[in-house]
Parts: sequence; C-alpha cells; structure tokens
Amino acid sequence: MMILRTTAEMRRQSRAWHRADETVGFVPTMGYLHAGHMSLVREAAERCDRVVVSIFVNPTQFGPNEDLAAYPRDFARDEALCREAGVDAVFYPAVGEMYAADHSTWVVEESLTRTLCGASRPGHFRGVTTVVAKLFHAVEPEVAVFGRKDAQQALVIERMARDLDFAVEIVVAPLVREPDGLAMSSRNKYLDADQRQRALAISRGLALAVRKYERGERDAAALCATVADGIRAAGGEIDYVELVSRADLCPAARAEGPVLLAVAARFGATRLIDNVFLG
Amino acid sequence: MMILRTTAEMRRQSRAWHRADETVGFVPTMGYLHAGHMSLVREAAERCDRVVVSIFVNPTQFGPNEDLAAYPRDFARDEALCREAGVDAVFYPAVGEMYAADHSTWVVEESLTRTLCGASRPGHFRGVTTVVAKLFHAVEPEVAVFGRKDAQQALVIERMARDLDFAVEIVVAPLVREPDGLAMSSRNKYLDADQRQRALAISRGLALAVRKYERGERDAAALCATVADGIRAAGGEIDYVELVSRADLCPAARAEGPVLLAVAARFGATRLIDNVFLG
Repeated sequence: MMILRTTAEMRRQSRAWHRADETVGFVPTMGYLHAGHMSLVREAAERCDRVVVSIFVNPTQFGPNEDLAAYPRDFARDEALCREAGVDAVFYPAVGEMYAADHSTWVVEESLTRTLCGASRPGHFRGVTTVVAKLFHAVEPEVAVFGRKDAQQALVIERMARDLDFAVEIVVAPLVREPDGLAMSSRNKYLDADQRQRALAISRGLALAVRKYERGERDAAALCATVADGIRAAGGEIDYVELVSRADLCPAARAEGPVLLAVAARFGATRLIDNVFLG
Repeated sequence: MMILRTTAEMRRQSRAWHRADETVGFVPTMGYLHAGHMSLVREAAERCDRVVVSIFVNPTQFGPNEDLAAYPRDFARDEALCREAGVDAVFYPAVGEMYAADHSTWVVEESLTRTLCGASRPGHFRGVTTVVAKLFHAVEPEVAVFGRKDAQQALVIERMARDLDFAVEIVVAPLVREPDGLAMSSRNKYLDADQRQRALAISRGLALAVRKYERGERDAAALCATVADGIRAAGGEIDYVELVSRADLCPAARAEGPVLLAVAARFGATRLIDNVFLG
C-alpha cells in the first residue's frame, strides 16, 4: 500500500492506473477510521479496480470554537486498517500541502447549505466543498464514496459535482451503527461512559420517530418532538432536530414525499449528528 | 473541425485525444472573435497537439444592468475563423447545458477580486471563476490560454488553478491592439465612429504614463492622473484608473516593484478596459 503525501504524487499514481485502464474509487476521510469508513472502502472496492483513501483533518471546515486541535488522530492505526482492507493508496497530505498561506479560492454551495449543519456551523460546508474539490483534482477518481451519516454533506457534494461538472460518480453508502444503535463517528471517542450511554437517546428517538411515521404520523412538529424530548430527558443539548425535504433540504411542515429527519445534539462538549430518511 | 455542444461530448473527445497521447490546449472565449482571441489560439497551438476553443456568453458574469442581451454574437463567423486557424474543436454549449435551473455551487476568489473590476462589477468574477472551472472539467486541458487585456481575470484564474489544484497550466498571452492603439475587444463593436476615436484616450493615456514612468515618475496619483485627465478630456466616464501591486492587486502608492496600471472607462454606454504592466 502506497502512502502519498503530495497532490502531484497522488495525481501521478492515479494517472498511471488510468493509463493501465484501471478505475479509481475514492474515500475521503479525516482519519481515525471506524467501521463506518471501512464500509465506504468496501463500496469503493466493489465498484473500482483501485481504492484511494485520503486522511486529512481539514482545518477550513472547523469553526474557530470547534474541535480542530482535539480532533482524534492515529495515523499508524489508520494505515493498518487501510492495509488490512486492501486499500491501494492512502493520500495523506500535510496542511501546508493543501493550503497555501495566501489561499483565497473557495467552492461554495449556497442552497442546500442554508439549513441543518449549514445553519449551525457557519463556514463548515465551504471548507468541505473546497477540500473535496481539491481532493477530486488530486485523485481524479471515477467514483467517490460518502457516508449517509453526514446526509447533508453527501447531498451538498452531489450538488457540487453536478454543478461544477466533476467527472466523478458520487455514491452514498448507508449509515453504520454500533450494536446499541449509536451512529458510528470518530467523535464518539470524546464521550465518557455516562455520556456514551445517554447519547443513545439520539438513535432511540429517531427509531421511535420512524415507528410513529410507520403508524401514520406525518406532522413535522410531532416527529421532531419525539426525538427532541428524548434527547432533553437524557440531558443532551439540542443544536437542531428538523424535518426537511430530501430534494432541497428546506423545512417541511409534514412528512409527505421523501424527507430527512436530522439531529445534531451535544452530550457534554461532544456534538453528534444522526438522521433517518422517511418516504 | 468538430463542434461539440455538451460537456459529455467535449470530455469524451478530449479523453480520446489524451488516450492517443495528444495534449490539449484550451482557449475559453465569449465568441465574436477578433485578432486578440486568434493570438491565444496560436499560443495554444504552439504548446499543444490539439486546440479547443469554447464559445459561451456566460450569463453569470454579467450584472443585472450589464450588456448580456446586447453582447455581440456571430457563430458562423467565429466558426469560420476557428476553422481557418486550425482549431480542432469548438465547444459551444447552450446556457441550459451549463447551468441547471437550480444551480447553486460557485467558485469564488476572495482576495484578488476586491479591487478593479471586482469592485466595479460585483459578482462578475464569481461568474468567471465558476464557468472557467466548469469549462476546465469539460475540456480537461493541459494548457489554457488567457489574454492580458483582462489582466485581473488572468491573475484570478491563475490563483484559482493553484488553490483548487487544477491540473492545467495557465498561460497569459500579450494584449493585442488595433493599429491605432485601441485594445482589441468584442465590445469595440458597440462604439460609433466618434466614440471609437475618442476612446483612443485610454491607450494614449496609458502610453503617456509609461513614458513618464520611464522618465522616473513613480507617484501613483501622478501616473493615474495622466491617464484619467486624458479620458475625461475626451468625454469618457471613468470607472477606475488605479495603480496596484501585481502580486496581490492591492492599491500601490508608488510604482515600485512590479505594478499594474489598469483602467476601466465608458464611452457612451460602452465600458472598455485596458492596462499596462510597469516594473
């Protein structure tokens, strides 16, 4: 397995594969890999001859008061997991390789980013779309795989790829949960045992909302309250619990047609997100 | 010579050339081609095996009160000029091919676009960087050639290509002038005979400023006044006459180091730009 640290090296390798008529599947990550990431790697491997995983804790998608410095990193462990999974190359650039001191060009999506994490984390998606555009240019993949845990991110990236004519197919893979239901996330590491237990209120609340939906509940306020009440009862602090249209991520008053019920909540200092698709 | 109307066709053709180990040089234009454009085509042909010219009057780089509807178009003439010049393919997409109705992703450069045309045409460069990013993804060129008449545009595109890791070399070709000195522009067509004559004040003012610079004048105010006085005397309306640093396009008080003396002025309803590099 290759470890490539510059955009030039990465592109050279990807082009060598393309010249040999091999396709490249790409999984962008911030590292500290878990089973959710590894499911994306399997999706990429099923679709393409070669798999590239990028590991880059992207500073521009963190707000000034967010957890950039604390974000968990363990490259040796990530490297071992990638090797074991048959990844062909890890793209592992330094911050200085990705951003010049006078970097001044951004990719911005201005519609789907107005709600949910776009509203609660100003500037976050601008960092995401910019770094993903750069990574696409470095890796030049046929396929890029994103996880449905970050449902809004996946939709924003699909929109970016369409709007800017990136020659890459965006695949969105299912959310992967711990056995007790907690959505897998590198940030789960921040939780102490008590917080970890209380954080189950998020996935349990979503599961309860799904059951109510299946029994006919369509009112957004009722579905959101189901989730929010459980989180508050467990001592969580809610960033948002929202029902939005899957097409444009605008708030929906009722769960008619394809909608997304999305949550962001804090347990202690740890912000967790989760979601379910309905309809 | 091929005429390709969709991004998919364009990319397929470019990739066929690349598979045959041929390089692609690209000249993006808004059509109504003149000798300035054709000098860019020659630059591209000298550097690459194949030359692609795009002809697309990009609506997103025009402000609401600008000349989008009036912008001159003559595809038959442009086609003949390209054929004559040995262009391999003209990429000629419709607006609907380039922009979905719910297009919402933009490429923005936030430093070099603060002055000059970036200040006097809000939103203009956002349209330029976005469409050029899209065109780069359609054509996938090794080299793209821009004209120095749009000096700020060329610097902004160089910055964008660097910041977003586009695998394309940006070449900036010299400004081409009419025999009497007027900078070539598709918009010169708007000028009546009287305006055409009076508009020479722009290039004459810049030439006079160059002579003063060569005789030792370094004061920005004096150099700018040389240009502005001539334009006003000829009945032109000044958008800006500015001396800026070539590195960051910030206003310079003195012409020390590499600087750009740039002008935008109106004769009648026609906005013309011109510039000289000093130092």
